[in-house]
Amino acid sequence: MPERRLSCPTDVNLPEAAPILPAGPPSHPRVLILGLGLLGGSFGLALRRAGRAGTLWGRDQDAGHQAQALALGLIDQAWQPTAPPEPFDLVFLGVPPGQVQAVLEGLGPWLRPDTLLLDACSVKAPVIAAVEAALGGHAAFVPSHPIAGSHLSGPQAARGDLFEGATVIITPPPGLTVQALRAAWALWEALGARVRELAPEAHDQGLGLLSHLPQLLVFNYLDLVARTGTDLGLAGPGFRDFTRLAQSSPRLWADIALENRPHLLPLLEALRGQLDTLARNLEAEDREALLAGFQRAADLRARWASLQP
Amino acid sequence: MPERRLSCPTDVNLPEAAPILPAGPPSHPRVLILGLGLLGGSFGLALRRAGRAGTLWGRDQDAGHQAQALALGLIDQAWQPTAPPEPFDLVFLGVPPGQVQAVLEGLGPWLRPDTLLLDACSVKAPVIAAVEAALGGHAAFVPSHPIAGSHLSGPQAARGDLFEGATVIITPPPGLTVQALRAAWALWEALGARVRELAPEAHDQGLGLLSHLPQLLVFNYLDLVARTGTDLGLAGPGFRDFTRLAQSSPRLWADIALENRPHLLPLLEALRGQLDTLARNLEAEDREALLAGFQRAADLRARWASLQP
Repeated sequence: MPERRLSCPTDVNLPEAAPILPAGPPSHPRVLILGLGLLGGSFGLALRRAGRAGTLWGRDQDAGHQAQALALGLIDQAWQPTAPPEPFDLVFLGVPPGQVQAVLEGLGPWLRPDTLLLDACSVKAPVIAAVEAALGGHAAFVPSHPIAGSHLSGPQAARGDLFEGATVIITPPPGLTVQALRAAWALWEALGARVRELAPEAHDQGLGLLSHLPQLLVFNYLDLVARTGTDLGLAGPGFRDFTRLAQSSPRLWADIALENRPHLLPLLEALRGQLDTLARNLEAEDREALLAGFQRAADLRARWASLQP
Repeated sequence: MPERRLSCPTDVNLPEAAPILPAGPPSHPRVLILGLGLLGGSFGLALRRAGRAGTLWGRDQDAGHQAQALALGLIDQAWQPTAPPEPFDLVFLGVPPGQVQAVLEGLGPWLRPDTLLLDACSVKAPVIAAVEAALGGHAAFVPSHPIAGSHLSGPQAARGDLFEGATVIITPPPGLTVQALRAAWALWEALGARVRELAPEAHDQGLGLLSHLPQLLVFNYLDLVARTGTDLGLAGPGFRDFTRLAQSSPRLWADIALENRPHLLPLLEALRGQLDTLARNLEAEDREALLAGFQRAADLRARWASLQP
């Protein structure tokens, strides 16, 4: 999986440690957040905490969410597409991947070619295509995936420290300028994140395996349990951990699964092959083969745990 | 799934609330624990805390475990099959299902027909067969599955409160006497557990679905990840919860999977059917079908959560 780290991506003055307020004016005087749920709301809070934002405008299709975001102070003002066309310096997309193109349509008059445009979607290649289709390069789009989140959602779940210590993966699209990459990189770092760079396809493959496939497995496992009508009183603590992912939004995940299906279909095929082998080993009562596979799994889990900070 | 609760299964004097020491002599003067890991060690501690044990003998194939159990005070004395044949009042099996028959072979001289024999295995029908093969009814075996545990194992992980608040499922074998059932029931309650009764096959089917199948899915998912060589740095908090089961012992789980394969093979087949449907829905981009399944899963998870104390 191709990856590289930029050793020093800054051409902006970074504070010594986030979230110390920089002495000068905010680096992004006019900010627009489209989608005011957990990610959009948290981005607004974090941006203000880091002293990076001038005025925060926001918009959500859900009028209730928008009113909540205002009441909670996640944004300063509600924005409407009828507002005077004064360009924003920074636009953040807090919407699911399937809505990216729609929320950007007609936004041209509020963007400059150097307006920094960030998203937070769990799938990148389709979002890059959606942004290109909607804007045709008329903004500096830096696709970003903060690996942070919660099963909670909505403006009330927003937290100013959501990105602190999180990994943010930037997946550069064709034509990305060094200036835009550096600005996005410095901004995420100012919000406390660790930034990595990865090709969009490598991201979608890796996250498909490490995030999307578990989500599909848990949903489909529980759907099977629902169909059997089994007494849930028999479920223990392992069931709780294994199924925690099912607290996430079904609608968001249907969207992600469809957008990333080119990677998910082969992964599902590989998993089904793995389960076929498991069934054969059980039928043959091949204890050694079973044990070898379980041990490889346990070893990998232990290796992952040893990598955690 | 057949189940019934006994309203008042006591013909022994129960303390008002565990773990208050009863005034009289311990209900089980001579106790033997075979297998001194997490479950066996915790059983010894809990039994003493509840004032139920006279002298606690113990034995483990692993000499190091046995020495630790003595040093930690989980048992009073090490026991050997060369000891004088004085019958025990209570024997607890803290070994994996595949070892039950072997540890019971030759134990006859230390058992009376009314010696209460308990196990803690996650699979019941094969264990009932193993006990029958080893002892042929020469003990009052009450198959018990405490749905409690930890990814920790060994005598050092033993805790006197392991069974407090846990559900213990009793699966009566043919020929079980009412007296033995009531004695086991009262004993588990004295250790703080909630007791349920379930037919052995219903237990193995239900636990196969709610415990063993998730374990197999996590092991096989991680084995797939290991084969791809994917960068684990991309894994987020969802990965941690989803894969937590892989901290359990591969050897124990190979044993459980083999013992319960009559139930696990059809469950695996059903899950593979579920994944086939998922792949078809992804290929057809059938958002409504995907969403409906994900929603059924999320609803079931929410229903399970609402049942938790």
